[in-house]
Amino acid sequence: MKVTVHGRTRHHRTVTFDRAHNAVLLIEQRLLPHEFKIVAVKNFRETAAAITGMIVRGAGAIGATAAYGLAQGALAFRGGDLKKFSRHVETVYQTLAAARPTAVDPVNAMNDVRAIMRSGQTVEEQQTLALAAAEEFANADVRHCEAIGRHGAKLIRNGMKILTHCNAGWLAFVDIGSATAPMYAAQAQGKKFHVFCDETRPRFQGATLTAWELAQQKVSHQIIADNAAGHLMQRGEIDMVIVGSDRTLGRTGEVANKIGTYTKAVLAARHKIPFYVAIPLSTIDWNLKCGFDIPIEDRHEIEVLGAWGVISNPKSEIRNPKSIQRAYVRVANPASGARNPGFDVTPAELITGIITPAGIFKPRELWRRRGELGFGG
Amino acid sequence: MKVTVHGRTRHHRTVTFDRAHNAVLLIEQRLLPHEFKIVAVKNFRETAAAITGMIVRGAGAIGATAAYGLAQGALAFRGGDLKKFSRHVETVYQTLAAARPTAVDPVNAMNDVRAIMRSGQTVEEQQTLALAAAEEFANADVRHCEAIGRHGAKLIRNGMKILTHCNAGWLAFVDIGSATAPMYAAQAQGKKFHVFCDETRPRFQGATLTAWELAQQKVSHQIIADNAAGHLMQRGEIDMVIVGSDRTLGRTGEVANKIGTYTKAVLAARHKIPFYVAIPLSTIDWNLKCGFDIPIEDRHEIEVLGAWGVISNPKSEIRNPKSIQRAYVRVANPASGARNPGFDVTPAELITGIITPAGIFKPRELWRRRGELGFGG
Repeated sequence: MKVTVHGRTRHHRTVTFDRAHNAVLLIEQRLLPHEFKIVAVKNFRETAAAITGMIVRGAGAIGATAAYGLAQGALAFRGGDLKKFSRHVETVYQTLAAARPTAVDPVNAMNDVRAIMRSGQTVEEQQTLALAAAEEFANADVRHCEAIGRHGAKLIRNGMKILTHCNAGWLAFVDIGSATAPMYAAQAQGKKFHVFCDETRPRFQGATLTAWELAQQKVSHQIIADNAAGHLMQRGEIDMVIVGSDRTLGRTGEVANKIGTYTKAVLAARHKIPFYVAIPLSTIDWNLKCGFDIPIEDRHEIEVLGAWGVISNPKSEIRNPKSIQRAYVRVANPASGARNPGFDVTPAELITGIITPAGIFKPRELWRRRGELGFGG
Repeated sequence: MKVTVHGRTRHHRTVTFDRAHNAVLLIEQRLLPHEFKIVAVKNFRETAAAITGMIVRGAGAIGATAAYGLAQGALAFRGGDLKKFSRHVETVYQTLAAARPTAVDPVNAMNDVRAIMRSGQTVEEQQTLALAAAEEFANADVRHCEAIGRHGAKLIRNGMKILTHCNAGWLAFVDIGSATAPMYAAQAQGKKFHVFCDETRPRFQGATLTAWELAQQKVSHQIIADNAAGHLMQRGEIDMVIVGSDRTLGRTGEVANKIGTYTKAVLAARHKIPFYVAIPLSTIDWNLKCGFDIPIEDRHEIEVLGAWGVISNPKSEIRNPKSIQRAYVRVANPASGARNPGFDVTPAELITGIITPAGIFKPRELWRRRGELGFGG
């Protein structure tokens, strides 16, 4: 998407590849929203470290990063010995797979790339195929998000006020995003609307990443405390909710997403406000039979006990700090601990529709229509 | 309540009076939870400034502070001229009334004190009566909270997990608090229970003040992000909700309280979890006919765009910082703004009961039983 730095606007993807330097180019997401910087990651071990260190995050984005990382590792091999090459590629694969062990996207992406490269007869052919497959993986991610946008944009009418939670934007994918895709597509169609970004405690992805994205694309928006959505719905100030999902159960239509999503779905149902979940098909889990069995990560309490930001004078510098000095401030009582579940599960009954690249589905019809969604079972 | 500083445990009230030095003694709440300090406020103008500057906050606490401030101003008068004295008292009254113009408690408290002091025949008598009336106002506030605790403690059973929002604790009153009163009373009866404190964005009163209070009284508790309550309810980890209220409508049973309260009530209703509101009778508004007419203050966006805290190294110093350096960190995207409603209104249908000093009432029976609640109409 478009990014404007020092008055210059350019198009960027979250993840790209620099063939000349055999480098993976990543937006350094840990610096956002306070600084925009592209880092060139020079070898596959550093690419794995970038995934581990959260320079890049989000299902689609880390999938593409791992795909490029596998190609990068393959391309770094010197010589023509296919056996040695295969052993090397195996090391690259394992290193990248271990970068974020609970995520499935890097492994799925690398499996795609590896299957395609293996059709090559020589090291050089396999190297060429690896990069082509990684590029195709990234391009497919973009096409899926474009298709989500095409279907979802139909739901957005002029003057609407839309709530979103966390960041399911282009920073979480290669480009465009899932929950944001309908917004960007509607904007391209000339529709006017306003987005409320839940700040999304404890990690503030809404206040930092989603707000940054929307500001860059000049989408009208405001950040709200997670506590405020109920009040705004009560006063008729929210017309639709669109969120992403980390895992959607194909059998039940239940949606696992960032903590707080369930709360917004309950509020939306009470106020008869449509609640949509936008996802690529890769996040549908066709196996699990019960949302209660989705493991909910209990994250470290420091996220709840304080906040990371840039030291500011709130009276004078709120929008224009003179220098950027990052800090963690502890907010909470020093003698108190915290409980920090990272995700929650929203039942199908609260979800108006699932916006996928293949169209918009009722959550409970995913299983019956699984053929259209590319699931053979 | 009990406060332990450097290993010494003492009983404190939020607001007291030092007759020898004609000073109002206040817990400096802006330093909590990182430092505990009592400040002696030497004259009525400083007392007004302490209310304005939020050294003291909370309905009961600022009421008592204004009552003591009026007595303090009266006691500072030298001479026996009753007319001059009355003019002086009028200045004191107006100064304190202007300290927080939208709050009704300081004015109501001072009206009580002034009515009693006027029965005195001399300046000296009026001065004596003023202080006695202020002391009685503070003691009555404590008795009301004790009565809330007595009624509310019956609702708490061993092993319960209780959610509370914001701070309706003893720091908001002279002692004991409203939402916390049932907890402290149940603890005194030997009951064991666990409290989840909503951190209460944007100002974090739950993570700072309520958590500090509960830690001082050794009540088992954890802070949670406001986003987490829905998930915990879904997993059966919350048995009851108790919150306070800034204004409860006697005619409809609607409850205005800190932003996010409505959301917790909606969630509790979905999960059939009892939702109680604990209030002194002075917060019942017998006039307003519709919750929609309660003015909802839109507060400054800096509260949402960042956080105040103590600069820490989250890895090593989270619970034991070497020095206390306060800072505001801007978290949100610099180019984005925020919407910041301060309160919301919860309808009667979502409220299980209103815990008052006169007993526990259904929200919709307040009007019919207004006689028992001291309202003549």
